[in-house]
Amino acid sequence: MKRISVLVMVATAVCAIALMTLAASRADDEAAPIFGIKIPPGFRDWKLISVAHEEGNLNDLRAVLGNDIAIKAYREGKLPFPDGTIITRLAWSYVPSEENNKVFGRQQSFVAGPPTNVQFMVKDSKKYASTGGWGFAQFKDGKPDGKADLNTCFPCHVPIKARDYVFTQYAPTP
Amino acid sequence: MKRISVLVMVATAVCAIALMTLAASRADDEAAPIFGIKIPPGFRDWKLISVAHEEGNLNDLRAVLGNDIAIKAYREGKLPFPDGTIITRLAWSYVPSEENNKVFGRQQSFVAGPPTNVQFMVKDSKKYASTGGWGFAQFKDGKPDGKADLNTCFPCHVPIKARDYVFTQYAPTP
Repeated sequence: MKRISVLVMVATAVCAIALMTLAASRADDEAAPIFGIKIPPGFRDWKLISVAHEEGNLNDLRAVLGNDIAIKAYREGKLPFPDGTIITRLAWSYVPSEENNKVFGRQQSFVAGPPTNVQFMVKDSKKYASTGGWGFAQFKDGKPDGKADLNTCFPCHVPIKARDYVFTQYAPTP
Repeated sequence: MKRISVLVMVATAVCAIALMTLAASRADDEAAPIFGIKIPPGFRDWKLISVAHEEGNLNDLRAVLGNDIAIKAYREGKLPFPDGTIITRLAWSYVPSEENNKVFGRQQSFVAGPPTNVQFMVKDSKKYASTGGWGFAQFKDGKPDGKADLNTCFPCHVPIKARDYVFTQYAPTP
């Protein structure tokens, strides 16, 4: 193989990787207001903490995931959560599944529809000392959600101070 | 240090590792009937595919997770799923959260209660050729669930043959 072909191949590979990296980081550029939190890379693949359903205005299905620091702390029952903990809540519209209902023979199945938003709780006991050591953020489609008033997050979490302001508990393995 | 002390230390370390291995594999020893599937190690930490809620007799909240082969196939929209794919469905009782409801100021929050069971779909196009290439298993507390009639799994999945017999779709990242 000629040396120039090898160079072209290497250049192409480098460009492809650069483009993929750019695409992957698209959502990570803009910080949410107040707490200055950016979307942590790879959060969609974090480990599962638990699941929930909210009725009412939220009307969603949600999964709560954690980074490795969060999962370790949950499993060890370690409170307060250490600095570096990030807990994320992903939510989707609560929609009936006609496909599933046909198989079950009745209306009983609800699945994740279009995504609504994703929230993050980031532990930094110094940076966020005035809000229990937690920073809060909300994003939709990779952008900070303008509708979210992040000042209301912490007051709602105060009642669960005994669990370091975290509502979601680790779902036991079936 | 005397040679005998070193030997004792090494023996102790080996035993400790052997005991930890035994403890970790406790749940992996017993295969489910019909398809001969054992619990795959580490499944609780697999990546999230989606979430759902079933009403009726099931009355649960569920998370569907996948091993790396499953997640890759989902993301690439690759059908049929390749051999080695494992998809797991973890389910918990659907229970109201009084703790959350107090904060929301109304009855709207449902969370994962005690676990019900865990199911696995394992792709092996040769071994499970007569059931669309999929083997099925159900476990509770690490033991094959005696109540599960695994012969009923595949017939229920036949209507979704166009998606390689898999109902759950990958939930988009919010």
